[in-house]
Amino acid sequence: MSAKKKLKNKDDLRIRLDINNIFEEVIGGEEGFTRQELEAAKDKALKARDNILKAEAEGKMGFMELPYKQKEVIKDLKETAEKLKEKFDNLVVLGIGGSALGNIAVQTAINDPYYNSFEEARNGYPRLFVSDNVDPEGIRAMLDKLDPEKTVFNVISKSGSTAETMSQFLLARKIIAEEVGEDKVGEHFIATTSSDSGYLIEIAEREGMKKFYIPDNVGGRFSVLTPVGLLSAAFTGVDIEALLDGAAYMDKISREADFWENPALINGLIHYLAFKKGKVMSVMMPYSDRLRDVADWYRQLWAESLGKEVNRQGEKVNVGPTPIKALGATDQHSQAQLYMEGPYDKIITFLEVENFAEELEIPSAYEDLDGLGYLGGHSFAELINTEKKATELALNKRKRMNQTVKVPEVNEFTLGQLFYFFEFQTAVAGELFDINAFNQPGVELGKNYTYGIFGRDGYHDKKEEFEKSAKHDDDLIL
Amino acid sequence: MSAKKKLKNKDDLRIRLDINNIFEEVIGGEEGFTRQELEAAKDKALKARDNILKAEAEGKMGFMELPYKQKEVIKDLKETAEKLKEKFDNLVVLGIGGSALGNIAVQTAINDPYYNSFEEARNGYPRLFVSDNVDPEGIRAMLDKLDPEKTVFNVISKSGSTAETMSQFLLARKIIAEEVGEDKVGEHFIATTSSDSGYLIEIAEREGMKKFYIPDNVGGRFSVLTPVGLLSAAFTGVDIEALLDGAAYMDKISREADFWENPALINGLIHYLAFKKGKVMSVMMPYSDRLRDVADWYRQLWAESLGKEVNRQGEKVNVGPTPIKALGATDQHSQAQLYMEGPYDKIITFLEVENFAEELEIPSAYEDLDGLGYLGGHSFAELINTEKKATELALNKRKRMNQTVKVPEVNEFTLGQLFYFFEFQTAVAGELFDINAFNQPGVELGKNYTYGIFGRDGYHDKKEEFEKSAKHDDDLIL
Repeated sequence: MSAKKKLKNKDDLRIRLDINNIFEEVIGGEEGFTRQELEAAKDKALKARDNILKAEAEGKMGFMELPYKQKEVIKDLKETAEKLKEKFDNLVVLGIGGSALGNIAVQTAINDPYYNSFEEARNGYPRLFVSDNVDPEGIRAMLDKLDPEKTVFNVISKSGSTAETMSQFLLARKIIAEEVGEDKVGEHFIATTSSDSGYLIEIAEREGMKKFYIPDNVGGRFSVLTPVGLLSAAFTGVDIEALLDGAAYMDKISREADFWENPALINGLIHYLAFKKGKVMSVMMPYSDRLRDVADWYRQLWAESLGKEVNRQGEKVNVGPTPIKALGATDQHSQAQLYMEGPYDKIITFLEVENFAEELEIPSAYEDLDGLGYLGGHSFAELINTEKKATELALNKRKRMNQTVKVPEVNEFTLGQLFYFFEFQTAVAGELFDINAFNQPGVELGKNYTYGIFGRDGYHDKKEEFEKSAKHDDDLIL
Repeated sequence: MSAKKKLKNKDDLRIRLDINNIFEEVIGGEEGFTRQELEAAKDKALKARDNILKAEAEGKMGFMELPYKQKEVIKDLKETAEKLKEKFDNLVVLGIGGSALGNIAVQTAINDPYYNSFEEARNGYPRLFVSDNVDPEGIRAMLDKLDPEKTVFNVISKSGSTAETMSQFLLARKIIAEEVGEDKVGEHFIATTSSDSGYLIEIAEREGMKKFYIPDNVGGRFSVLTPVGLLSAAFTGVDIEALLDGAAYMDKISREADFWENPALINGLIHYLAFKKGKVMSVMMPYSDRLRDVADWYRQLWAESLGKEVNRQGEKVNVGPTPIKALGATDQHSQAQLYMEGPYDKIITFLEVENFAEELEIPSAYEDLDGLGYLGGHSFAELINTEKKATELALNKRKRMNQTVKVPEVNEFTLGQLFYFFEFQTAVAGELFDINAFNQPGVELGKNYTYGIFGRDGYHDKKEEFEKSAKHDDDLIL
């Protein structure tokens, strides 16, 4: 779907991190860093890199292996997509969190924004629905529109016990069984799960579903470049090899031992130091509709990895910058006022597209009217990038820390780089915060209450605890 | 589209604010408020209310008049929608910020989530596109899909000089002129703008466009219940009178002089006190797909109103809580880890739907498998609301301040209440922060740089300033 990229060599398509606007020369001494500050922390960052490479050697950094170790699975994904595309008009992903956000980010970045709405926008590929909530009205509205005969579901859950995903699976299964046939269930579902444990693999075997595996050493939020993200991508015509190529390209850069040549390492350090300096929010603001959902994907990656109560010594630290998704130029009319004038509590990362697939000229008209006449003859590409640069400079004048990831163009190769860049940066920040960036203990309690209330075996005490605690004073319901 | 509401009386449909979980009895003394703390600040809040009512009497609180003073305009909106619906298949809103976010929030809340994608989802009403960015690829992708003959545009800009909106207008105008006819421009555009100033009113008159007016005393982010938000609502079959009824209902409650009977007043105070207590982020987390974009609308309202550099005495204060949009249950798998274990820097507002339009049963299957068997026989409505309550309780146990707006069901009447509730609360918070909640001086500089670079008359100095300042050290582009 993006043939243009083949014309360029990889280095022309390298994404770059512009960190000019984090320094005191630009944003002043109170808010900005000195180069010495970064230099002084350099060894700490390099130690973080060493630890990551050591953990990788021990097989603990699965996301770093993905660009290289998936030849077989890629072949299988492409063949499966090719085959099922003939049979089905709709692919529904049943997944949540890391089993949905990457899929959405790839779809938004590579395919037409009206892909599902207009046949001409999808070139014969099936529609893609990512069903990542359990709102009854939302689920019903979707399922009502789809012809079961022509619909295949990819159920994604590593553990096979994600309540949201498995409930949706139960409903979809019933629809297929009733409307297509009990014996057809196996054909209408694909299971993407752990290869050796959990309920979904068991079900897939009973029903004879096609299976894809999530490597044990890759957590949900790092799984976009496993079959989790790649199957829906392949189904919708995305070049999944180019995605992995991009990740491999950025992997090489991220292993660099020279601090000043390693942007993901530097950026992990910058974000760590910014947090210590009171910049407790990390805003990601793409000036690009296509990259909008990369910011949403990043939101999970950053929040779940770094939001932690204890450090590795078990000391209570309660750290974690809060990631925020914004969209340029749109949010200039929503969030910019706060970013310009509010507390000095943010570091903003712009994503800037250097070359849009087209410029799209703004026509001239009403040239006698001062408020419009100046627009004609410029292009929308110019306008959006000018607005980005104008916002950046206005932030600098107001001493607001910001940086830019420059994306030469949006395609599979640069998207793969972006994914890997932010993943590596997250691992680095985890090292610097001295926390475990790969677990999520804080979500267990809420899950367990739900299990308890729903009557799952072994959670009866949670039900009691819930019933005892969940009392509300009616006077405080206003 | 939501006949069911007519069966209930208004008081059954009153939204309610549950503030149990802001108090020390629930979340502990370090993080929670005492009732005495609220009592002690009560007079300050009541003073804020007095100031608002006084400003209203002076004609400065336009948003408070909207539920009552629009009989004529509602008639006109409905007739226009009825007439144009016969002629056009597509309505495109050209607007940004306050001229887009309310439109999107209404559409998501009331209509089918697949409204544009499937004809059966829109019952003969036209498709709705809200074009609120200037990404060339995004604009092109939209315009390519639409038959100009069958497309009408609503251009929304109070000043008539919003660069993003007016550029899009110039392009759309050219398409209509070329493909339908220069003499047809007037028929394919509606202008929604100030009645007495600006470029858009001038253009509308030249071209003979239908006009709707944005009252001078209503700012963009408070304008959803003016023609800005109401025209697209009427076009897509939304009951706009019920929206205004809901706002009027909440207006009465918000005028209440008894502090403990006035939830919008209390909530303005709570958010002010929470900010002072270090809760610098205000998360809005609907457990409802339909209310998802109300959170996005709130994001502008809150950020632009309260993010201010100076107070009314001109002293530098740099205040403003950062609004954050989250979605339950989805973001339990993305943000909950951070909310549970990260810094104690947030107040979370859940939006809970008490009655979904349907329950949607989760079917039973695989009852021998412990990880699935417990789900069967429950409903999705139960699941999403149980997850909400489980998350709430888990947050309480971790001393995280939270509250819930209970929405009896999602329809025009409750949506109107929500809009008004948060608007009034914002005005209250503005009073307490002692800032001007109705301006946005911080966005001017960025706009002016754009004007300068684009060569608009009168901004040449900004161009020079930009060129002098926007220098980057290439060594810092990694």
